[in-house]
Amino acid sequence: MEHNSWQNRFQTIRSNKVFELTVISIIIFSALVIGAKTYDIPDDVSRLVTILDWGITLFFLIEISIRFLAEEHKKNFFKSGWNIFDTLIVVVSIIPIENTDMALVGRLVRIFRVLRMVSIIPELRLLLNSLLKALPQLGYVLLLMFIIFYIYAAIGSTFFYDINKELWRDIAVSMLTLFRVMTFEDWTDVMYETMEVYPLSWAYFLSFIFFTAFAFLNMIIGIVVNVLEDERQKDRKKAQEERGEPTLLELQQQLDEIKQLLHKQKQ
Amino acid sequence: MEHNSWQNRFQTIRSNKVFELTVISIIIFSALVIGAKTYDIPDDVSRLVTILDWGITLFFLIEISIRFLAEEHKKNFFKSGWNIFDTLIVVVSIIPIENTDMALVGRLVRIFRVLRMVSIIPELRLLLNSLLKALPQLGYVLLLMFIIFYIYAAIGSTFFYDINKELWRDIAVSMLTLFRVMTFEDWTDVMYETMEVYPLSWAYFLSFIFFTAFAFLNMIIGIVVNVLEDERQKDRKKAQEERGEPTLLELQQQLDEIKQLLHKQKQ
Amino acid sequence: MEHNSWQNRFQTIRSNKVFELTVISIIIFSALVIGAKTYDIPDDVSRLVTILDWGITLFFLIEISIRFLAEEHKKNFFKSGWNIFDTLIVVVSIIPIENTDMALVGRLVRIFRVLRMVSIIPELRLLLNSLLKALPQLGYVLLLMFIIFYIYAAIGSTFFYDINKELWRDIAVSMLTLFRVMTFEDWTDVMYETMEVYPLSWAYFLSFIFFTAFAFLNMIIGIVVNVLEDERQKDRKKAQEERGEPTLLELQQQLDEIKQLLHKQKQ
Amino acid sequence: MEHNSWQNRFQTIRSNKVFELTVISIIIFSALVIGAKTYDIPDDVSRLVTILDWGITLFFLIEISIRFLAEEHKKNFFKSGWNIFDTLIVVVSIIPIENTDMALVGRLVRIFRVLRMVSIIPELRLLLNSLLKALPQLGYVLLLMFIIFYIYAAIGSTFFYDINKELWRDIAVSMLTLFRVMTFEDWTDVMYETMEVYPLSWAYFLSFIFFTAFAFLNMIIGIVVNVLEDERQKDRKKAQEERGEPTLLELQQQLDEIKQLLHKQKQ
Repeated sequence: MEHNSWQNRFQTIRSNKVFELTVISIIIFSALVIGAKTYDIPDDVSRLVTILDWGITLFFLIEISIRFLAEEHKKNFFKSGWNIFDTLIVVVSIIPIENTDMALVGRLVRIFRVLRMVSIIPELRLLLNSLLKALPQLGYVLLLMFIIFYIYAAIGSTFFYDINKELWRDIAVSMLTLFRVMTFEDWTDVMYETMEVYPLSWAYFLSFIFFTAFAFLNMIIGIVVNVLEDERQKDRKKAQEERGEPTLLELQQQLDEIKQLLHKQKQ
Repeated sequence: MEHNSWQNRFQTIRSNKVFELTVISIIIFSALVIGAKTYDIPDDVSRLVTILDWGITLFFLIEISIRFLAEEHKKNFFKSGWNIFDTLIVVVSIIPIENTDMALVGRLVRIFRVLRMVSIIPELRLLLNSLLKALPQLGYVLLLMFIIFYIYAAIGSTFFYDINKELWRDIAVSMLTLFRVMTFEDWTDVMYETMEVYPLSWAYFLSFIFFTAFAFLNMIIGIVVNVLEDERQKDRKKAQEERGEPTLLELQQQLDEIKQLLHKQKQ
Repeated sequence: MEHNSWQNRFQTIRSNKVFELTVISIIIFSALVIGAKTYDIPDDVSRLVTILDWGITLFFLIEISIRFLAEEHKKNFFKSGWNIFDTLIVVVSIIPIENTDMALVGRLVRIFRVLRMVSIIPELRLLLNSLLKALPQLGYVLLLMFIIFYIYAAIGSTFFYDINKELWRDIAVSMLTLFRVMTFEDWTDVMYETMEVYPLSWAYFLSFIFFTAFAFLNMIIGIVVNVLEDERQKDRKKAQEERGEPTLLELQQQLDEIKQLLHKQKQ
Repeated sequence: MEHNSWQNRFQTIRSNKVFELTVISIIIFSALVIGAKTYDIPDDVSRLVTILDWGITLFFLIEISIRFLAEEHKKNFFKSGWNIFDTLIVVVSIIPIENTDMALVGRLVRIFRVLRMVSIIPELRLLLNSLLKALPQLGYVLLLMFIIFYIYAAIGSTFFYDINKELWRDIAVSMLTLFRVMTFEDWTDVMYETMEVYPLSWAYFLSFIFFTAFAFLNMIIGIVVNVLEDERQKDRKKAQEERGEPTLLELQQQLDEIKQLLHKQKQ
């Protein structure tokens, strides 16, 4: 009984608007603290920032505890990816860090706290989910693009290896160089260099730009069509439900009934 | 009574086509004067330009006065953002300016007079309004993009601070550097520099480009879908109104009436 | 009578498939000659090219004459913009050129002959027409963009004049610099330079990029929506015509007739 | 009879899921081998890679033989472009190569083996087919773009030849330079150089950028509209078939029947 009353109290806190706003404020504040740390700040302020940092960690620890205790079925808590993410951020933050390698991880974790903004604001969570949902649909286009990159990188590091080792050292470096070409970033420098040895190598670069641009375009169109398709289907359903409109099939059935009535009258 | 006749006269002037065209001509002329001032011009012409400048200011003062006096309810005049903008431009223009700092503001205000073009041509006003209306819908995507920028900038200024202070000095400078990376402007220079210290830092840049491109794409698709949705709804309404076409529901009701008539005949 | 028989003969030639293909071949051949002239060619070949050039001019003169003589109403011939363009190209080609300035014009006219490809292939003519038709719809967006450019260029040449005269000399040069910034071409070099004097000038560049990108986006969406709208209307019309389908209004009228019949029976 | 039983056995192998997965695995493995060869590897590993390479070639030879023998009508086998491609890759791989020129071809063929991924995974094959199918629709836009490039390149190499021979040597080099301008890659360097001789040459570059951007935009819109059109038609057909819904025409015919029945009753 007492256990339940505790849980209810935690649930009241969790769904409290003030509590939610406090959490968001603290997250924004922690983001500002992270930003402040990147400036050259006097030692006094630096010490203050460290204290604030621990305060934020403590607050997040309490907040996650409340949300955990408010959960009726403790197992469900860890079924949500966002809850796992939040817990991880807090747990790693409170581990005492000594050596420098781990200190780096500690700093990174503090930075990722800003991502809690996404986990706390439902609209952002929805946005991210819909982004992630669109990814698998693009799977095959991404695979095709990877194959194009792989083949061109293999050709590139075979032929251009001696021209510029920095750019065509091996297949991985070549793929990075090709990504650079795809973003049009000083790509003519890369091309003019190879054209001095292979005068026809412009065909290599132009065909690569053409293929990737084409695959990229296809990907965008794919997404647009998918999104519009979804919208249209939602639209259609809503329209039918709202108006309670009969289908043409139902109208035909009624006409059939009328005809049968007329036939009966005739007899 | 006399007050009213004055107001009517001003209203007549305000809605006069010639008056409107004169205002537009003067705005274009003031834009040309602003442009002329950026060239190296002899002193004589420079003095002429100054006189023209005062003439334009005077004209705008008279024009805004006419529009203010023509307004029946003086309060409504300042409810329109464009009227406030116009008044501000005129008022700041007639303040006598002595010291150099204010002279700069004076020059800026004269430049912003060109924006009066937007306030006077209804089609441009409409266009700008529809642009501004689209902004809040994109609010959450922009917030998500800001979070991505903030996290990457925090990571960047933590790890790359010692590599290039010009680019990664603090979180603000890092965000500017990341914006540069997003526009693909010499981004490989930035990356190659960090890759000498952290060979895996290409993952930092590629993931950043991927995330921002993805969020940006999502934003564009969001706008397109919204615009198309609006268009379709307008379309549907217009189509139904124009043709005065009955809904399927009304047809069904008529069929029901016919059936009832037939049933009555039977009895 | 005889005049008419001549005209008929010319019309036969004009609409002859072989004649059309010959014209297209000669245009392609003239394009190749133009291309050949840009290479370093020995004197013999150069003289051959000059002869070929005169041959092409002669052929075009004959072709345009045939098309002119085939026209029933000579006035209509010059109503088509393409005919005027073709005639101009031919007439300027046959003017004997002595001094060097005119020689340049002569070379330009020979290059523009390639455009005759567009005037002769109906699909290309259609494509170009549809492109030109889309332009006026974009008029106001282009005007808005020009205003944005003008204001930013005026501000730029006011503040940055002393920093780099090459880029911010006057309003015209500033607009060119801003166009460069819009294409993201070494725009950070321009910005870093001004930020040394005005540390906040990044706001100038970022807001400019934002505004132009936004206006540009709006323009694209405008075109897409227009095109889709056109397609949908064409679609709808075709669908209705093909299926000879009655409207819902006609069905309702029939139902009314049936009801009246039933009412009469009752009486 | 025996021949048939052999064929059946091969068909069983061909459609076997394990066989298919083995083929895909070997293709991926061959891709990894190709990638590995671009790294500096010790001689031992290099010899191992050569052996693996022959193993892969052997496997592909067996695989293609099975698929050939499984085919009932041997002629049909070579009607599929993918089968021809696969056979070619295998046949060239097993030709013993001596001199260095052919060794290069041999390496290229090994790289193109990665493309077999596309021929073996149906979804990728479908994707590529739909990409290729979209190409001819864009034919005229591409032709128009080529004409724009050709004319601008001819003008460019006529006027700018003396300014920079590297960029404007002949029409082919000029077209490459213009492609560079279209991708906004250091295009202002090209322009500033010509503007020193011809101060108005900015018009040449700006108009070129405008025309190509416009044609490019048109191309994209063309594809989007085509794709959406296709989707909508598929949608409509599916909707009608699924619901088995009568057309309005059929409803009208039924109403006509009812009216005739009523008229008969009256008599």
